[in-house]
Amino acid sequence: MQEQRHGNWYAARLRVRYQESDQMGVVYHANYLNWFEIGRTEMIRQMGYTYRKMEEQGLLLPVTGLDVKYHKPAKYDDEIMIFTRIVAFSGLRLNYEYDVRRMTEDLAIQFGIGEQVWAPDESLPGERLVTGSTQHVWVNGGWKPVRLDKAAPELYSALEKVWLSGKE
Amino acid sequence: MQEQRHGNWYAARLRVRYQESDQMGVVYHANYLNWFEIGRTEMIRQMGYTYRKMEEQGLLLPVTGLDVKYHKPAKYDDEIMIFTRIVAFSGLRLNYEYDVRRMTEDLAIQFGIGEQVWAPDESLPGERLVTGSTQHVWVNGGWKPVRLDKAAPELYSALEKVWLSGKE
Amino acid sequence: MQEQRHGNWYAARLRVRYQESDQMGVVYHANYLNWFEIGRTEMIRQMGYTYRKMEEQGLLLPVTGLDVKYHKPAKYDDEIMIFTRIVAFSGLRLNYEYDVRRMTEDLAIQFGIGEQVWAPDESLPGERLVTGSTQHVWVNGGWKPVRLDKAAPELYSALEKVWLSGKE
Amino acid sequence: MQEQRHGNWYAARLRVRYQESDQMGVVYHANYLNWFEIGRTEMIRQMGYTYRKMEEQGLLLPVTGLDVKYHKPAKYDDEIMIFTRIVAFSGLRLNYEYDVRRMTEDLAIQFGIGEQVWAPDESLPGERLVTGSTQHVWVNGGWKPVRLDKAAPELYSALEKVWLSGKE
Repeated sequence: MQEQRHGNWYAARLRVRYQESDQMGVVYHANYLNWFEIGRTEMIRQMGYTYRKMEEQGLLLPVTGLDVKYHKPAKYDDEIMIFTRIVAFSGLRLNYEYDVRRMTEDLAIQFGIGEQVWAPDESLPGERLVTGSTQHVWVNGGWKPVRLDKAAPELYSALEKVWLSGKE
Repeated sequence: MQEQRHGNWYAARLRVRYQESDQMGVVYHANYLNWFEIGRTEMIRQMGYTYRKMEEQGLLLPVTGLDVKYHKPAKYDDEIMIFTRIVAFSGLRLNYEYDVRRMTEDLAIQFGIGEQVWAPDESLPGERLVTGSTQHVWVNGGWKPVRLDKAAPELYSALEKVWLSGKE
Repeated sequence: MQEQRHGNWYAARLRVRYQESDQMGVVYHANYLNWFEIGRTEMIRQMGYTYRKMEEQGLLLPVTGLDVKYHKPAKYDDEIMIFTRIVAFSGLRLNYEYDVRRMTEDLAIQFGIGEQVWAPDESLPGERLVTGSTQHVWVNGGWKPVRLDKAAPELYSALEKVWLSGKE
Repeated sequence: MQEQRHGNWYAARLRVRYQESDQMGVVYHANYLNWFEIGRTEMIRQMGYTYRKMEEQGLLLPVTGLDVKYHKPAKYDDEIMIFTRIVAFSGLRLNYEYDVRRMTEDLAIQFGIGEQVWAPDESLPGERLVTGSTQHVWVNGGWKPVRLDKAAPELYSALEKVWLSGKE
């Protein structure tokens, strides 16, 4: 993972659930990690794979590290877009970056349908709330490291393509 | 499960976590189901078994139904006692009843150590917040029904003893 | 609430999150209560109101009781529809009923867009997983009971109309 | 916060809840953030303050950033100790560090009672699972920055004392 490249941004949407609020009246800070997971899951779905199918094939992608910056709090019922991109990739590892943003009603309608991607140098819509990154390794059902390029060459190629997609 | 008997009340303790509050400033209503689970888990531990070991032997006890009454809300940092008892039992099924109560500092110290039980007709300490019941069936790892008396006769006897423990 | 009537079924959709699974490989039973909340929230949104705005006006609708029946477990990544209807209504109270169902891919596409409702005697699409009901009372910010018909007559009329909507 | 000092380690204990597991059979990675919160809450309680009382005085301490390293997964029913210390402190900010460790039965009994602290250079008991740090700022009820030394001088002094407690 010497080379530092950034893939295109993929987007996922959600509306903040009541249960995600806490008594400060904002989203409890741990919930953004669930949203990051939704971001990377939906990216893989847009590539034509599913994380579920990966797991059924005995491939797990546990988190080995992460960091988060909290800029502004999300609130109950907000329309949220989670932007996700791959920032490092090999047969052994996969690192993601996230930008969680609040949409206005107008923006929510504009990006309501379809599976648009954003180039690394494009500005993302909405208001930045939280940014972060997660680091992962490929393991099998027994939590032993596996090489993705050997275990699932098709998925490897698809992810590599997404990683290299950013025109930098 | 024709016969309706009530076992003794067993107690478990916890302090309300920040993450369990919601923006009404009270514990989010779904969290009491986690507390019920803690109540029945700790009861089994006090019997000398663990739910974890049960699962490792391939015995699961999923919830098939439940009901809850909300009397008063719990708040962040409250000292809580969850009282749990068995109200129906057979080789196929197991039903629990719960009484979630708030302790004052004095009561919290009084019941701080030890594994006391309360008879069905004793009055429980503290202030009643939430009551409820859950219904369960015994299944194996493949979610097929199992007879506990055949699959784990020792655990069956121990649970039966607890169920019959209430002096009614 | 003498009269027992059933309003039309309103629908909300979600995909099961990884975090909602537990180590039995199914959705943890408490999470269905969050889904019920999403069901009633989306119903109110389809009526042109939002639960968020209600709260900003000082109107809360806490849960006073609930019951759930678990028929089949939902799994990670399933496409879920939550059907919600009003089964009792007055200026003081509001009771909902829920039918949580798993969609096939075909059904998910068919019901993907639009805000369809189902009459009480229509059969609902998909496979029944969990059913339940919740009971609520109207209170103000200080948790004192309020009469909705006095506090928010427009919302009262809108809810009454939805409640009476079922052609029985 | 030029000066980098480490306070003594404070300890909090918990047992892993069923709901905290996911379908990989381990604790879902976001839950460690809840445990970090329990760690810092219990530290403040051992100092004779409570986070609840702080909030009632209009003092909030939201998270502005965090990072986590996952060494080994915790599992359902594990006995966990969360070690927490202050690593940076001023009237405006507060940074914590955490070391989440699994206890054996023997260790759990040994550290069962009492409120021991560990010096920065002492080795901590148990098996390291997860480490991390969180950054916080002091704000008032309206989320405006406040100077703790002015708003709550007693709490400021108590925290400073804990921060300077590490004999380095």
